[in-house]
Amino acid sequence: MNRFHSLAELDPAEIRDLLALASRLERNPEPQALAGKLLGLLFLNPSLRTLASMQAAMHRLGGTSVVLAPGQGIWQLEHRDGVVMDGSAAEHVREAIPVLAGYFDALGVRAFAAGVDLEADLADHEFRNLASLAAMPTINLESAVDHPCQALGDWKTLDNLGVPADGKLVLSWANHPKPLPLAVPAAVVHMAAARGMEVVVLRPDAYALPEPILARARSAAEASGGRVSETADRAAALAGAHVLYGKSWSSPAHYGDLETERDLRKRLTTWTIQPDWFDGADPAAHFFHCLPVRRNVVVADAVLDSPRSVVVRQAHNRLWAQMAVLHRLLGGSR
Amino acid sequence: MNRFHSLAELDPAEIRDLLALASRLERNPEPQALAGKLLGLLFLNPSLRTLASMQAAMHRLGGTSVVLAPGQGIWQLEHRDGVVMDGSAAEHVREAIPVLAGYFDALGVRAFAAGVDLEADLADHEFRNLASLAAMPTINLESAVDHPCQALGDWKTLDNLGVPADGKLVLSWANHPKPLPLAVPAAVVHMAAARGMEVVVLRPDAYALPEPILARARSAAEASGGRVSETADRAAALAGAHVLYGKSWSSPAHYGDLETERDLRKRLTTWTIQPDWFDGADPAAHFFHCLPVRRNVVVADAVLDSPRSVVVRQAHNRLWAQMAVLHRLLGGSR
Amino acid sequence: MNRFHSLAELDPAEIRDLLALASRLERNPEPQALAGKLLGLLFLNPSLRTLASMQAAMHRLGGTSVVLAPGQGIWQLEHRDGVVMDGSAAEHVREAIPVLAGYFDALGVRAFAAGVDLEADLADHEFRNLASLAAMPTINLESAVDHPCQALGDWKTLDNLGVPADGKLVLSWANHPKPLPLAVPAAVVHMAAARGMEVVVLRPDAYALPEPILARARSAAEASGGRVSETADRAAALAGAHVLYGKSWSSPAHYGDLETERDLRKRLTTWTIQPDWFDGADPAAHFFHCLPVRRNVVVADAVLDSPRSVVVRQAHNRLWAQMAVLHRLLGGSR
Repeated sequence: MNRFHSLAELDPAEIRDLLALASRLERNPEPQALAGKLLGLLFLNPSLRTLASMQAAMHRLGGTSVVLAPGQGIWQLEHRDGVVMDGSAAEHVREAIPVLAGYFDALGVRAFAAGVDLEADLADHEFRNLASLAAMPTINLESAVDHPCQALGDWKTLDNLGVPADGKLVLSWANHPKPLPLAVPAAVVHMAAARGMEVVVLRPDAYALPEPILARARSAAEASGGRVSETADRAAALAGAHVLYGKSWSSPAHYGDLETERDLRKRLTTWTIQPDWFDGADPAAHFFHCLPVRRNVVVADAVLDSPRSVVVRQAHNRLWAQMAVLHRLLGGSR
Repeated sequence: MNRFHSLAELDPAEIRDLLALASRLERNPEPQALAGKLLGLLFLNPSLRTLASMQAAMHRLGGTSVVLAPGQGIWQLEHRDGVVMDGSAAEHVREAIPVLAGYFDALGVRAFAAGVDLEADLADHEFRNLASLAAMPTINLESAVDHPCQALGDWKTLDNLGVPADGKLVLSWANHPKPLPLAVPAAVVHMAAARGMEVVVLRPDAYALPEPILARARSAAEASGGRVSETADRAAALAGAHVLYGKSWSSPAHYGDLETERDLRKRLTTWTIQPDWFDGADPAAHFFHCLPVRRNVVVADAVLDSPRSVVVRQAHNRLWAQMAVLHRLLGGSR
Repeated sequence: MNRFHSLAELDPAEIRDLLALASRLERNPEPQALAGKLLGLLFLNPSLRTLASMQAAMHRLGGTSVVLAPGQGIWQLEHRDGVVMDGSAAEHVREAIPVLAGYFDALGVRAFAAGVDLEADLADHEFRNLASLAAMPTINLESAVDHPCQALGDWKTLDNLGVPADGKLVLSWANHPKPLPLAVPAAVVHMAAARGMEVVVLRPDAYALPEPILARARSAAEASGGRVSETADRAAALAGAHVLYGKSWSSPAHYGDLETERDLRKRLTTWTIQPDWFDGADPAAHFFHCLPVRRNVVVADAVLDSPRSVVVRQAHNRLWAQMAVLHRLLGGSR
């Protein structure tokens, strides 16, 4: 493995290897595996879990990391090609990324969706451009339409909880004051489909996921024996579900149109996830969310504070999952 | 010791042990004592000394630290329970802290007083709430009414300078453009009282310390043989003093009332500490301040630049004191 | 060597020693040379390369670094002596620097020119003041009129490329939306002169370098056999040049006068470096720039993206050059 951009780039055996290594590292520390290795972490957007857990992962393996956040003591970076740089950005990524590639053994990059042009975001143009400039192993710390660290950690959480490989996972849209990226929904439906699950996307009609995201998940499902469907019917979706994965995202139908979205959301205030959503689900059904989560907007306190909620376990599994990724990328096993 | 929240939680033998360990580590480095250990540092407020010295302390013992500062590349955190999170905070501490607890071996938290509700600040509600969410050793990096790292470093400085255990320490209020927290005054009066000193709080009447802060110090003085009093009489306070500890703080009588405070302070411009304040003090009397200090507002250049001033020594002792705390919390001696 | 403030403070043998060590460290890693050593990095101004490469350099030698950036979670610092600190700065450098000196084994400081008073900036007053407060080895991470880390890395790049010791280096002014400091021009002309090169400063008349900068370079040239001249004649300057080093800087003739500068620059838009600038140069001539560079303002894409451009190599050599400096300062060879 020489990069970690998407679970969709890995074959099932590679994913199983990472999951096994994550569990092994959780049980048997390898505090010198990456001694002397140096990871650069380029955050073009805010973070808490990824920021903390990537640094912790590197240190737990004996390596070190350096955080770089343009706009916070670092020049703003220009991304567009061919532009006359007479604005606020002092440096172009075509210099910045190759420069950093000379200082570190691997580079993690977080680059959210711009949220303006759906096609560009679905093509993950910005992250792919940045990664292409780095002649070194690169890690996707969340791009416009993927978040493989989250997906791998979630897969481990599903395994640890004993959720059946062919169990039912419902990814439900939820309310939120802002239009959010499609990265986690895209990564989660693919991950659950690749795991062989019955994946149901529950959402208002205006929030139907873009076809390329569903197509990728369906393709994974075909290989694994899983299934992928979408619905606006909450009761049908949740009947017998093993997992309710809550998450808000932008309306693909009104992408970048903030006003229309705002009006839409005013009529969708019943999409705050409540305890009674679980009424027809499997009695042991779990609540997942990638965090950060807005309490009593996305999901009620009564769900988050109940034993159904495993959001903190998900976050903790990010650490072990990322340690496995770093171990494979930086040659710790050699 | 499984947490370091306040010197007032430790018994005299535990404090003596930390001081002895701090001095031992100053003389005899233990560069591998905390090898492999990882400290998270959550700064909800600015810092220079604490930020630099906690990282240095961890590294000097062979461990590593990760700094996390919400608002600087990290989501704003919500602290209130039961709130509908439709504002600027994207994440609740009820998720953030337990998540971080899974990544680190110990967590330091800096959470200043809100400065609005005196009762809430005196109860140290926010810090206690944050610490209660972390299932791991926690360190108070300055809370609403305590700053045990400062207090422990100051105790070491008093010892190093040979200030008599039953010597006289005057904590004097000083002028400042802003109303500041009560954390350092509260920690210092308790520390000096617990050391057995004669503690005099010198302040204008509107700046009398709240009764719970004085009561805690008096209780420590009873056990140690020290004394605690308050006065607005400068000459009486400083007569024979071994230490003049300068510090500004908010008026407890007008807590959160910024306008009244501003008017009050306009009449208190003589409370800039000057060389002649030492006229009746012990000839070898020292000037202490926790830093940061505003020159020529809190204290005149002529005091800070004189041999009386030991403010830099105080700051340096923070390093050794915190190394002792980390050593005890993270099992370096085992 | 107990400080690294300017190449102009080192004799030729010391510079040769650093260059040889840089190359040795590039070939033969010494991952434990600075084990246990701790470097503080005080950034009073933004950075990308220096921030990333100094941390990488320290880690590659087994040491650790701590970044401190006032204004980003750290109090604003006051620099002026004797001032009544009732403004926004909460702490004075006269406390901050000596405090930090107690936590670290060496301190790097970045302090740009204020850009108001040319005499003060030429005297490098602020950096010299900060460094004088630190009783420890200090490193100049770019001051008002010097940038020795850049200069040393550039020297190594010239050597690696086989540019003749007596080759011709043209430092050309270039257009830019803002008036920039004189630090890199001053450091580069001195470095190239000390290397024995024929240095030509190509610039519009209003951008003639200040006499003290030229005098320092001339003095180095006298010792090395190099030469230093200035001209506004592009063809003459570039005839036979081995290196075109692009860089924008403020007009010394109108220092701090932003309006006059803005008007001046409107008439200087032909000073964007283009491929045809190399027409009379040595066929193998290289393009240098310290970065960050504004594409299509300072230099055309067609130059930066051509094989002539070695800007990324320059940045990479910063790493090895700084490792040599840290190794010598922190006693790695002992």
